[in-house]
Amino acid sequence: MSAFTASEREAVYRAILERRDCKRFLPDPIPDDVVARLLVAAHHAPSVGFMQPWNFVVIRSLEVRGRIKSAFERANARASDLFTGERGASYRALKLEGIMEAPLNLCVTCDRSRHGPVVLGRTSQPETDLYSTVCAVQNLWLAARVEEVGVGWVSIIDPADLRAILGIPDAVVPVAYLCLGRVAEFPASPELQRLGWLDRIDLAPLVFEDRWGQPSSGGPTPT
Amino acid sequence: MSAFTASEREAVYRAILERRDCKRFLPDPIPDDVVARLLVAAHHAPSVGFMQPWNFVVIRSLEVRGRIKSAFERANARASDLFTGERGASYRALKLEGIMEAPLNLCVTCDRSRHGPVVLGRTSQPETDLYSTVCAVQNLWLAARVEEVGVGWVSIIDPADLRAILGIPDAVVPVAYLCLGRVAEFPASPELQRLGWLDRIDLAPLVFEDRWGQPSSGGPTPT
Repeated sequence: MSAFTASEREAVYRAILERRDCKRFLPDPIPDDVVARLLVAAHHAPSVGFMQPWNFVVIRSLEVRGRIKSAFERANARASDLFTGERGASYRALKLEGIMEAPLNLCVTCDRSRHGPVVLGRTSQPETDLYSTVCAVQNLWLAARVEEVGVGWVSIIDPADLRAILGIPDAVVPVAYLCLGRVAEFPASPELQRLGWLDRIDLAPLVFEDRWGQPSSGGPTPT
Repeated sequence: MSAFTASEREAVYRAILERRDCKRFLPDPIPDDVVARLLVAAHHAPSVGFMQPWNFVVIRSLEVRGRIKSAFERANARASDLFTGERGASYRALKLEGIMEAPLNLCVTCDRSRHGPVVLGRTSQPETDLYSTVCAVQNLWLAARVEEVGVGWVSIIDPADLRAILGIPDAVVPVAYLCLGRVAEFPASPELQRLGWLDRIDLAPLVFEDRWGQPSSGGPTPT
């Protein structure tokens, strides 16, 4: 395979740096061929032992989404109580999901029983099947960015609710619940950073050499 | 931000489709500026509540890598016993790591205590910090592909060994142990597929609509 050109390289870095978690969506439908390309991107993620443990539950039904939205509201009411004072007020002002507005919801799951109990490479770290599924999510997220489709990961839902509402079997774990749709903009920085919730951490102190806590010596300081 | 052009879009899909898990490396060092760019790509992964729970332990020391390699060998001897007959012979013929040959090893970790016990978005699904860290790994993997750097994820190591050898604190989870380096080629298909270990699964039957098990109706069948 030929090497990537400088402009191809830049395109991939641009997708990585300009990807955002989106919570506000336009009602425009996502064309079927775009959805198909996003799923192909997800399906080409790395997976432990080439296990490909994922499934994709595309959710268009407003009735199903209404039940998911209620599950979010229950979980978020509990979560909200954990943030008090000024932090609590900020938390309650945040928009944390776009379940009903987004034209498409997608639950990405991991079938832990796929290919039986023994999977190459999963013997010492059984959670690597879940990690493979997350790689599929990130592939889809980056592909969506270049398709000008926003993606928002809704993590404030009790997995037991997701399981019940979507009929997910016991051996299967709902890894990510995503909202997808066109967006008015991809802002220059993450919303939680813009709102002063948390800053981007300096990268250099996060990098160690040869042992935890040992500063990295040579090389340019990444920023 | 301006929309992605058709050629930028193609570049991202190309990186996704041509990414491989690599186990055979050339000895050429990876320039420091390339390593820095890969870490920046990882650091721009999505993270729950903008938690950025990751650290990066870059491992160049051959002494440290020798201990990791021994840990791999112990774990792989145990794993190998799980594959019998023809499958066992195939398993033992596989090259599953490039710990000593690759010019660089990298352990990507997740600090579960970062920002304290309550993190926005992590209240219902505590494992989302680990998932964020995997998104960082996948960003790095795709960036490496366009830098013509091969990445191999070595999952056959007891995490307790990684923890002891690298001095990783209790609150921190070693999520991924990676080998990085130049490679002779990025093959057209994954090695486990070429060797007949497992085939790529058809995507269409993995896609459901509105509920687990319900075939997806409209739209082109993704391939």
